[in-house]
Amino acid sequence: MRAVRLHEIGGPQNLRIDEVPVPQPAAGEVLVRVRAAAFNHRDVFITQGKYPGIALPRILGSDGAGDITALGDSVTSVALGDDVVIDPMLDWGDDPHVWDAKNSSLLGMPRDGTFAQYVAVPAKNVYPKPKALSWEEAAAIPLAGLTAYRATFTRGALKAGETVLITGVGGGVQTFVLLFAKHAGARAIVTSGSDEKLARARELGADAAYNYKTTPDWHKQVRSEGPVDLVIDSTGGDTLVKAIGAVRPGGRVAIYGATTGDATIRPFDVFWKHLTIVGTSMGSPQDFEAMLALFDDGKLRPAIDKVFPLSDAVAAATRMDEAAQFGKIVLKID
Amino acid sequence: MRAVRLHEIGGPQNLRIDEVPVPQPAAGEVLVRVRAAAFNHRDVFITQGKYPGIALPRILGSDGAGDITALGDSVTSVALGDDVVIDPMLDWGDDPHVWDAKNSSLLGMPRDGTFAQYVAVPAKNVYPKPKALSWEEAAAIPLAGLTAYRATFTRGALKAGETVLITGVGGGVQTFVLLFAKHAGARAIVTSGSDEKLARARELGADAAYNYKTTPDWHKQVRSEGPVDLVIDSTGGDTLVKAIGAVRPGGRVAIYGATTGDATIRPFDVFWKHLTIVGTSMGSPQDFEAMLALFDDGKLRPAIDKVFPLSDAVAAATRMDEAAQFGKIVLKID
Repeated sequence: MRAVRLHEIGGPQNLRIDEVPVPQPAAGEVLVRVRAAAFNHRDVFITQGKYPGIALPRILGSDGAGDITALGDSVTSVALGDDVVIDPMLDWGDDPHVWDAKNSSLLGMPRDGTFAQYVAVPAKNVYPKPKALSWEEAAAIPLAGLTAYRATFTRGALKAGETVLITGVGGGVQTFVLLFAKHAGARAIVTSGSDEKLARARELGADAAYNYKTTPDWHKQVRSEGPVDLVIDSTGGDTLVKAIGAVRPGGRVAIYGATTGDATIRPFDVFWKHLTIVGTSMGSPQDFEAMLALFDDGKLRPAIDKVFPLSDAVAAATRMDEAAQFGKIVLKID
Repeated sequence: MRAVRLHEIGGPQNLRIDEVPVPQPAAGEVLVRVRAAAFNHRDVFITQGKYPGIALPRILGSDGAGDITALGDSVTSVALGDDVVIDPMLDWGDDPHVWDAKNSSLLGMPRDGTFAQYVAVPAKNVYPKPKALSWEEAAAIPLAGLTAYRATFTRGALKAGETVLITGVGGGVQTFVLLFAKHAGARAIVTSGSDEKLARARELGADAAYNYKTTPDWHKQVRSEGPVDLVIDSTGGDTLVKAIGAVRPGGRVAIYGATTGDATIRPFDVFWKHLTIVGTSMGSPQDFEAMLALFDDGKLRPAIDKVFPLSDAVAAATRMDEAAQFGKIVLKID
């Protein structure tokens, strides 16, 4: 089969299309003929050596959708021919409140991932593909949708009629947060350093949009539009500090990343406003199942930036690396 | 009547015992003959001018217990002669999740407080005194007990069998947290810079105790004793950073103060461990009622540092200012 493998740390250009043997599903696993896969920043970070313990060569890719073509021993939960979406979170653990960080991992490193014609995964990690979605749409959902769902609902507790502030819209997760928030009947305020991304966010339903480069006091401006009940942030640093300033008394801040690093917070703001700050990363099997159900009626669709053929994986990864995308970058796999 | 009034900003020595008229309860208010009152850091901070808008002279004091000697118009919820404890949180507001910070205030500034033979307060702010407690014990509870209850249970969600880490034990609130935690069947680990306070905390049931001066890596040591489910902190700064490091994955951190100021946190620790950080300040009427009920059976009693007569208010306030106390400093008012 054809697969996108990383041979050497150094960046997306080190990805190669290789001919490799089709994997065999072990007991409890299934073999999925991957019809489409999608990129996450993680895939690019892996090519750049930003994770420890990378063993090469390795097939990357956490996100994928396809149909079942072989069953390992003792698999009864799915059947040959089933169309599925893969939950890339392997071995989350038994506690829905927190993962088993030591024993869990994501598909696509260390375990071979979805950037290939076939992938073997545990049977418990495949879920019926929402019928309303194309292969490309289904493949665009998993990791970003899972992370966004848990941040928005399981941890952020967003409800209809509330207002959510989404800092740095455009990446996979924040775009899902926007889609989920609008689907749930909430108001959404977005920020970005790109007017183009803000315009796209407005097309997807954002009720207000601020360019943080031209409006550095966005955290004060958003307050003038009414109370912000929830902020969802993966920027950290000064953005997190501003987010804490923006949220209403009694409000919540959900964080799942910190691309700009440490944040010097004033605890006074947290206790005086009775804030709740919740950390979250990826999501539980329960989160994945509930997230996927949102797509059942076909009214909700992921935002896709661009679809590339598998043979253009380097170009796709380079686009991801440049952070120019809005929504998910997808690989179509014939 | 005799009352402790602040005449001039400058410190506890500016408190004076004055002869002043007995206040008259307005409609909806009651007059309480105060039998005992208690100090909070707030009272000392007021003498030092640390709050804005202090109008002098003023009778200080948030905590008090006594009996009802007069009723304002349209008061039916209490009767003359009732023994009561005063909830010092005035006009919390309608939302149990967060106070109405703009309209709420604490008894004892700007409104005349409990360091007097009589105080007029809203009838809705008095609750039946737990019969098992003395006047001094009842007076020791209100503000610190309320703050501790909300931090420990309403916001911190402490349950039997869990472990709570209490940073900087000895002050009024943290000592109540220790008492409440043990009463609820939790394990309690305490820190202090004073071996004497650690010994007192052990007498009150602390399961482990660390001197943060001689054991600066206490946050690592406590982890070796088993998972910490909840940290309760009012120190802020580096202590809060260490607290975030000490708590288990999926755990909670409740903060109600920040005596050492800003904290430079690593958001990674928060999202990777799926932590929940909750801010809290004072407490709602619901919190006060639930807190007071803990004392009904007489098994739980506040820790009292020392009882002074009203005439020794300056000495009492000076002891508070020196932070040498363990538990509450009480004024007995004949």
